[in-house]
Amino acid sequence: MSTIFFYGPKLDKEKSKEIIRDFTETASRLTGIQNSAFVVYLRESTPENVGVGGELLEDRLRKK
Amino acid sequence: MSTIFFYGPKLDKEKSKEIIRDFTETASRLTGIQNSAFVVYLRESTPENVGVGGELLEDRLRKK
Amino acid sequence: MSTIFFYGPKLDKEKSKEIIRDFTETASRLTGIQNSAFVVYLRESTPENVGVGGELLEDRLRKK
Amino acid sequence: MSTIFFYGPKLDKEKSKEIIRDFTETASRLTGIQNSAFVVYLRESTPENVGVGGELLEDRLRKK
Amino acid sequence: MSTIFFYGPKLDKEKSKEIIRDFTETASRLTGIQNSAFVVYLRESTPENVGVGGELLEDRLRKK
Amino acid sequence: MSTIFFYGPKLDKEKSKEIIRDFTETASRLTGIQNSAFVVYLRESTPENVGVGGELLEDRLRKK
Repeated sequence: MSTIFFYGPKLDKEKSKEIIRDFTETASRLTGIQNSAFVVYLRESTPENVGVGGELLEDRLRKK
Repeated sequence: MSTIFFYGPKLDKEKSKEIIRDFTETASRLTGIQNSAFVVYLRESTPENVGVGGELLEDRLRKK
Repeated sequence: MSTIFFYGPKLDKEKSKEIIRDFTETASRLTGIQNSAFVVYLRESTPENVGVGGELLEDRLRKK
Repeated sequence: MSTIFFYGPKLDKEKSKEIIRDFTETASRLTGIQNSAFVVYLRESTPENVGVGGELLEDRLRKK
Repeated sequence: MSTIFFYGPKLDKEKSKEIIRDFTETASRLTGIQNSAFVVYLRESTPENVGVGGELLEDRLRKK
Repeated sequence: MSTIFFYGPKLDKEKSKEIIRDFTETASRLTGIQNSAFVVYLRESTPENVGVGGELLEDRLRKK
């Protein structure tokens, strides 16, 4: 049994399906555990709730 | 001190109270640590944000 | 699908079995999801790696 | 590379900036790793989704 | 910035490299965020510390 | 109640005490919640178990 957590931006439905499928295939191939034993959680994180290098990501993106 | 994270469907208030009470009692009894030292986080996860066996849970549930 | 993380002291084999069984039964009963869909991770944490109230748990326990 | 998760009440923008800056400075100073390698996730948790001492935090706060 | 946690069996060095590379490429492609912003944590979990379907994984594997 | 997870290099005892004390003071000051309600988990991560930018951190550090 294996569990993957992804903390990142919200993905639309097609991309959510693709990230789940690809992560599961990669992990299943490398561990030798069957696909059905994998759970992937997509945990949305927004620029207001993440800090990078000591700065709010929201502020950091605005500067660019 | 001990912390429990539950990633699952949203629970109504009565069920939230019950899962918190039961998890805490079980964990307190088995660790010998007093009730007051336990924190339980109920982290909601929806079928749009979970993948099982490489498939979006939302799609998987629809097939059944 | 649902996942539970327990951060706490190391449990011996009998207690590990019991906490897994009880957490799963509680969560299955309250969510209406079958037992087989639950994964429980027991993540050991030691008094050298936890702080409570701003103090290392190791130091706090010694004072008592 | 280092990652910090904060599970707690929602913070306004000024406080979010300050907690990210302070956590990063503390962690950078103590690990000797440069600021840019730190990511901080502020994961909001509400009194309806946390239990303390076996009780829903929402109920516990109301009693006080 | 984006962070991935993998809870699963210990992987040897070649497989660790491959899972990190593949997860990062998939996530970068689907989010449009550059590779350098991804951190992957491989968090080992052993059959003594995981429960599936209410049973210790260690016991479950032995039955097979 | 509030919980902080730090995923990073192992810290010696003095630094563990300091990171716990500083994180707790910062978080208590900014949330207005008393010190005693904070738990900090120091979760060690080693260069063999982290990937940055698609590469094993162990390999990345060696190149420098």
